[in-house]
Amino acid sequence: MESVKVSNNMLARMPVYLNYIKGLPKSTQNISATKIANALGLGEVSVRKDLAKVSDAGRCKMGYSCDVLISDIENFLDIKSMMNAVVVGKGELLQVVFHYEGFESAGLNIVAAFDVASGKKRNSLNKNIYPMSNLESFCKEQEIRIGIILVPPEEAQEVCDQLISVGVDGIWNFTPIHLNVPEGVVVQNESFAVSITKMKMQLKEKDTVCEL
Amino acid sequence: MESVKVSNNMLARMPVYLNYIKGLPKSTQNISATKIANALGLGEVSVRKDLAKVSDAGRCKMGYSCDVLISDIENFLDIKSMMNAVVVGKGELLQVVFHYEGFESAGLNIVAAFDVASGKKRNSLNKNIYPMSNLESFCKEQEIRIGIILVPPEEAQEVCDQLISVGVDGIWNFTPIHLNVPEGVVVQNESFAVSITKMKMQLKEKDTVCEL
Repeated sequence: MESVKVSNNMLARMPVYLNYIKGLPKSTQNISATKIANALGLGEVSVRKDLAKVSDAGRCKMGYSCDVLISDIENFLDIKSMMNAVVVGKGELLQVVFHYEGFESAGLNIVAAFDVASGKKRNSLNKNIYPMSNLESFCKEQEIRIGIILVPPEEAQEVCDQLISVGVDGIWNFTPIHLNVPEGVVVQNESFAVSITKMKMQLKEKDTVCEL
Repeated sequence: MESVKVSNNMLARMPVYLNYIKGLPKSTQNISATKIANALGLGEVSVRKDLAKVSDAGRCKMGYSCDVLISDIENFLDIKSMMNAVVVGKGELLQVVFHYEGFESAGLNIVAAFDVASGKKRNSLNKNIYPMSNLESFCKEQEIRIGIILVPPEEAQEVCDQLISVGVDGIWNFTPIHLNVPEGVVVQNESFAVSITKMKMQLKEKDTVCEL
């Protein structure tokens, strides 16, 4: 991956461009920044800037070849280089995330699940769910770097510590708590509370405007 | 909810403060911005600013009363005023999200699930999963404003259109596609691809630095 400095907002738009372009009819060979901007309700200038950051295939009046742009965005997002991850959780939620296929398209491969509430290995749709006692040997052998934390909030810090102690240096935290980690460990927080609050705030703001 | 203008980053920190303060030992009566900043690895100035936006209960040398601060943040996030939502999806994932209790603590109550792949109403842990033919009457009767979209990407726009046509004006989109909505409809995109990409980029950046 080339090191191009990008903003969070730009990064967030990339998968949206990618899905939009991939969803175009097969007959569409070229696409312009203007057309993408209009279709996605974005500013033309930002789209133009975003695309220029990841691709130099844009041609005056022609726009971008869809195939080239798809491949340039995929390269930029480094989707093709898969990273392996383990997920630690319990119950049904663990099982669903383990079998959820949506992460693979972004380059993350969940290779094993660990159940904090179970002492025995079990099989789920041809994939193994292990007890926590297997975490160390598995992560060390497979050189796992990413751990997904799906346990109840009060167990999250302990699981986080365990993951780090077996070599994981990327934590994807689905709990709403702040995790304390040593320097050098990357934490990505997935906060549903923030999304819910943003939605509610926007809906209420809208109501206030309508009432005026 | 008072209308205080806040940045996305500040909004994202609020649930983290809340969980941190709620997690303190029962004996902790007061907490200072400095202590919160240190515990969460944040800048003292931002924490001070954030808290001042949502609470005027800070006292020189005393800090904040934990109880008051918790209640001020909860008021700010409007957690206590629940909004009802429906979720549309299919299969196991639908079922798990339907029963997932983590949204309630942020003020979102999933009152019904609709299965795009099923024609019959069924019961799941004492809650009903309906066929899509019930969507209109249910949403209109219950005045549902928020719809959660969990279907495969290629079905998302159609489901989005259906939700809007029955009165929903807040869409929580868990698919990676861009949804076209009329003006006034709030869309909150939950993009796992962005989180994965950010994590991978940070891990690779770290490797590059280490190799130097």
